[in-house]
This record gives sequence, C-alpha cells and structure tokens, in this order.
Amino acid sequence: MRNIKVILQYEGTKYQGWQRQDHTGNTVQGKLEALLTKMCGKKVEVTGSGRTDAGVHAYGQVANFHTETQMSLEEIMDYMNRYLPEDIAVIHIEEMPERFHSRLNAKGKTYVYRVINSKVPHIFDRRYVYAVEEDLDMEAMKRAARLLCGTHDFRAFTSHKRSRKSTVRTVDSIEIEKNGDEILFTFKGDGFLYHMVRIMMGTLLEAGTHKRNEAQVKGLLEAGTREEAGYLAPAKGLALVEVFYS
Amino acid sequence: MRNIKVILQYEGTKYQGWQRQDHTGNTVQGKLEALLTKMCGKKVEVTGSGRTDAGVHAYGQVANFHTETQMSLEEIMDYMNRYLPEDIAVIHIEEMPERFHSRLNAKGKTYVYRVINSKVPHIFDRRYVYAVEEDLDMEAMKRAARLLCGTHDFRAFTSHKRSRKSTVRTVDSIEIEKNGDEILFTFKGDGFLYHMVRIMMGTLLEAGTHKRNEAQVKGLLEAGTREEAGYLAPAKGLALVEVFYS
Repeated sequence: MRNIKVILQYEGTKYQGWQRQDHTGNTVQGKLEALLTKMCGKKVEVTGSGRTDAGVHAYGQVANFHTETQMSLEEIMDYMNRYLPEDIAVIHIEEMPERFHSRLNAKGKTYVYRVINSKVPHIFDRRYVYAVEEDLDMEAMKRAARLLCGTHDFRAFTSHKRSRKSTVRTVDSIEIEKNGDEILFTFKGDGFLYHMVRIMMGTLLEAGTHKRNEAQVKGLLEAGTREEAGYLAPAKGLALVEVFYS
Repeated sequence: MRNIKVILQYEGTKYQGWQRQDHTGNTVQGKLEALLTKMCGKKVEVTGSGRTDAGVHAYGQVANFHTETQMSLEEIMDYMNRYLPEDIAVIHIEEMPERFHSRLNAKGKTYVYRVINSKVPHIFDRRYVYAVEEDLDMEAMKRAARLLCGTHDFRAFTSHKRSRKSTVRTVDSIEIEKNGDEILFTFKGDGFLYHMVRIMMGTLLEAGTHKRNEAQVKGLLEAGTREEAGYLAPAKGLALVEVFYS
C-alpha cells in the first residue's frame, strides 16, 4: 500500500466543514473520499490533520490516504485538480512512509484570521474576511494576545461541553499586523480546541473595542467559563494556513 | 444641483454588465440608480465612465450623478455601502463642478487582465482570473504586445459590427509581468472599443502559445478582420482599474 500526502486549499463557504458526516454531508473530506474512491476503484479513506468548522477556509490543510493505484503522483494530482469542485485544490503531493499519519504526527498549526477594520467593504475578499466597523485599539489587542500565549487551560475558549480530554494547549505566538484597512491575526500553537481560535478572536476584538480589559482576559485563563469569554467570531475570516510535522 | 462623483468597485460575476437595460436588468448602473432614487426620493440617473461587459470587474470605475440631497458626502457614501449589494462598493466620493461628466471628460483608462498559468487551480481567486494550462512564452507575448501599442485602427479587435464611429484608438502601453504562477497584463490607453481588451488578450495568449506570430499580429492592425484576430478571452479575468481625467 502507498501512503500519499497532499496539501489542500479550500474555500469553506459552501461546506459543512472538513469532516465527513454520515447522513447529509457536503464536506471536504466527503468530496475527497468520493473522488479518490472513484479514481482507485476501491474505497479510500482520507485522514486530515484536523477538522475545520463549517465556513472555515484552508490555505494548507494536510491529508493522507492509502492506495494501491499505479498512477504517478503527478497523475493523481492532475486527476484530483481536474475533477474536484472549483473550491478545492491540491497544491502539493508526495509519497510518505507507511507510518505517516497527518493528524497523529502533526506537531503544530498556524491559523490566520483576517479582519477588515473599515466602513468601506472589501468586496473582492468578502468571503475571506470579517468586517468590523468600530475602531480597534491595536495595542490593547496586542496586550491581550500576549496574555493568551503560553501553556494554559483553554477550557473557557472552546464550545465543547466538558469532556475527559485535556483542554490544556500551548499557544506559541499570536501576531497582529495592520496593513491599510486590514488586520491580520496569526495564531501558532501545538493544537487548538474546537472553536478556540474563533473565541480567542472574539475576545481579542472585545479587548480592541475596550469592552474587556487585561485582568478579565487573565481571569478567563485562570478560572473562566465559555460564557465569560468573547463571542464566536465568524468562520469566514478564519483559515488554516500550515500544519507542522517534525 | 450637486454633482457627485464616486469611485466604485464591483465584482462583475453576477451582473449583465454596467449598463442599465430596459427590460431585464441585473446591472450595476441599475442597482445604483434604484438605490440613489430611493435615497433621494426622486429619480436619479448615474453616468459611468464607460460600460463594462457582463462578468467584468471594476477596482476603480468612476461615475457621477446629480442630486439635490442635503446629505453630507460621508452620509451618502455610508448609505450606499450599507444598502448596495455585497458585490458593489463605493470607495471614494467627492463633489465636482456642475460640468464634470465621468464619460465625456475621461482621458484614459487602465485595465488589468489576470492569467494563472498553471494546472494547479488558484481557488481563492477563481472568480477573478483566467486559468491557462499551456506554457506561455513571455517574450513572444511581450513582442506581440509592443506591436499593439500606439495609434492604430483596431477594427479587427472589436465585436461591434461596422459602424460609422472611428475605430482608431491609442494604446499607450501593455505591460506583462509574471509573479509566480500569475501573469498580469496591464493595458493603458485613451479608450477601448467593445471587447477590445479581451480580443487583444486572446491574440496575446495565442502569441504566447506560438499559434500566432508577429507578422500576423502586424497584419491584423493593417487590414485585419475580427475573424482573423484572437479569441475573446473570458470576462472574469478582466477588471477596469482606473479612469484618468485631466
């Protein structure tokens, strides 16, 4: 069996997220599996580095699948790009050792969140950005972001109900850069809980409009609950940019 | 009467072009006139710097309209951006002398045409680029582009049937730049005939794949017909970028 790794881009707008669903299921994983099963004439399962929520985009999602096909890597990539929907693309392909697993071997991820801070719409990017009209205080957001970095229990920053799994994660960095009307938030970490980046974003934006101060952000990490954290920022501003492997 | 000039952006995908049509009419001009007529409580006509075809985008279309409204420029711009469809935006507004006419006073225009020269789709830009898989010879396209510059009779480069109007135009420059997979074609001129940029693009792309040589391009300008010129490149790659006034 060959183990093929692909790097994928997709626009999340029309999908119910990455993960295949049993019944309905307009999902990215579902589209890939249907196509590869057809290509190989045999059921193919695709493993992703992790789920992305409905509406979230990917510039560099990593996935792998096992196949016995004799096709060359270039032929597989061309086939996929020819028959995948126009909002999904394979931008890289390579053959991996049998033990490579795109989720279990992932060591870290980078997400970006794009905000347009203006009353003037950016129409060409409107599917990929979140428009915020109120003035955002860059320094206040940067101070709040510094507090979120490091190893913490992020249970206040996930929409998952209490489970036995650890909610401790390490956020390596949160960079916030302004280019004209656009503010780009770049999150690097070893892994992110369900909705974690979007709740961090809601929290940072509330810091940026002075609805929330540093002490409150600190409190969330110490003994906070989901209800006390910021709002869930819209999916469309978020994109999975890169997955790191050792 | 006040004379208001606006600079507009729009994604052309869903529109039957700029120009209002009597019967059907999902047009940019139609949307603007309906909105401004509502805003002013009185019929408003909007004049554009020129038409853009169905599917063609604008980063900087210029239009003007007369109104007696007492609203401030900022209020007008905010109102328009709040109620226009999500694929049309006003990015600049100013008050002009009564005699300003966005079409008659236009001295020149810049259009860009975006080509992705790759088998790998650029999904996030797919509505704004034309994907060409065959290798394109940059030098051959640049040589052909140089021939098209200058003052010529461009009758072979328009889809309009013979009319009494002059088909002589001056193309000031055609720049062709490659950035990664993307090739950007920038056309500057005093004015362009119906379909002229898209037919020049089809001609340049045929030069780029060696289906057409320099002598043939030269011949088109001397005694060519529409049938002998290149194909009509798709609208979605084209955008009106800037309109110049003296």
